[in-house]
Amino acid sequence: MSDDLKNQELEEELVEATEEEVVETVETTELSDLQARFDEVENKYLRAHAEMQNIQRRATEERQQLQKYRSQDLAKKVLPALDNLERALAVEGLTDDVKKGLEMTRDSLVQALKEEGVEEVAVETFDANYHMAVQTLAADDDHPADTIAQVFQKGYQLHDRLLRPAMVVVYS
Amino acid sequence: MSDDLKNQELEEELVEATEEEVVETVETTELSDLQARFDEVENKYLRAHAEMQNIQRRATEERQQLQKYRSQDLAKKVLPALDNLERALAVEGLTDDVKKGLEMTRDSLVQALKEEGVEEVAVETFDANYHMAVQTLAADDDHPADTIAQVFQKGYQLHDRLLRPAMVVVYS
Repeated sequence: MSDDLKNQELEEELVEATEEEVVETVETTELSDLQARFDEVENKYLRAHAEMQNIQRRATEERQQLQKYRSQDLAKKVLPALDNLERALAVEGLTDDVKKGLEMTRDSLVQALKEEGVEEVAVETFDANYHMAVQTLAADDDHPADTIAQVFQKGYQLHDRLLRPAMVVVYS
Repeated sequence: MSDDLKNQELEEELVEATEEEVVETVETTELSDLQARFDEVENKYLRAHAEMQNIQRRATEERQQLQKYRSQDLAKKVLPALDNLERALAVEGLTDDVKKGLEMTRDSLVQALKEEGVEEVAVETFDANYHMAVQTLAADDDHPADTIAQVFQKGYQLHDRLLRPAMVVVYS
């Protein structure tokens, strides 16, 4: 083999090797690019999936809250009519018919509210979360502090949520 | 160059070419596998994203519906109390005090319902969607068909939704 021929062969081999390398480099770059894009979109998918579950959970919670307290606004506005009925019933000298009619009306209102979760606030012992003291009396042996002496106006709550406090006279 | 050498070289070249092909095939397979996985996860991401938007849209719509009709149940149950009050007010011989008390109570109930979107059903012309005919009268020149002669019991609607139909006497 002449030197020229050898050189030519070497050169050809070099060119071949370089071409091969280029092909491999291009494919490796393509592969790692795709891998990066794959990782990115997979992350986006996982985040979207997690977010979707959060949104569903929040929507369910919100729906339950809305359902639970749905009657709150109307209930609050109906309470003055109930007060009026109770005041009317406290008036002396009503005829039996009128009294009976007022009682029926009051009872049907109370029943309607009850079915929707509205109940009178309990007035056993004074609780600032549920009662408003409109007057205080001096506590003594028979009437320890925080005993409720009188209820001026009933309080109401919707499930655990206060609609309005009871107006009370309390020993303190 | 001897024939042996030439042959050896040719063989080496062949082996090299085959190895190169194998490498290329492996890389090409890896690339197309990854591409397939990429396409799959991208599709999953796009679907999850679309579903997320659907869930949000539905949750918003549902929330709006719940808000709009939230007073429906309590309103329906309060109507009999309102009927009672109106019947009581129709009784003859009430004292002025009682009458005034009943009127105040009725007005406060009507106001509470109105603020929550509850209104009386209109009774201009008979409409089977909003009225129930409890009695019919023969229509004549003065009373064309579908004229409402009398309302026995008021109907009520919450926004566009009927709570109960008006009970009417209608010409037909």
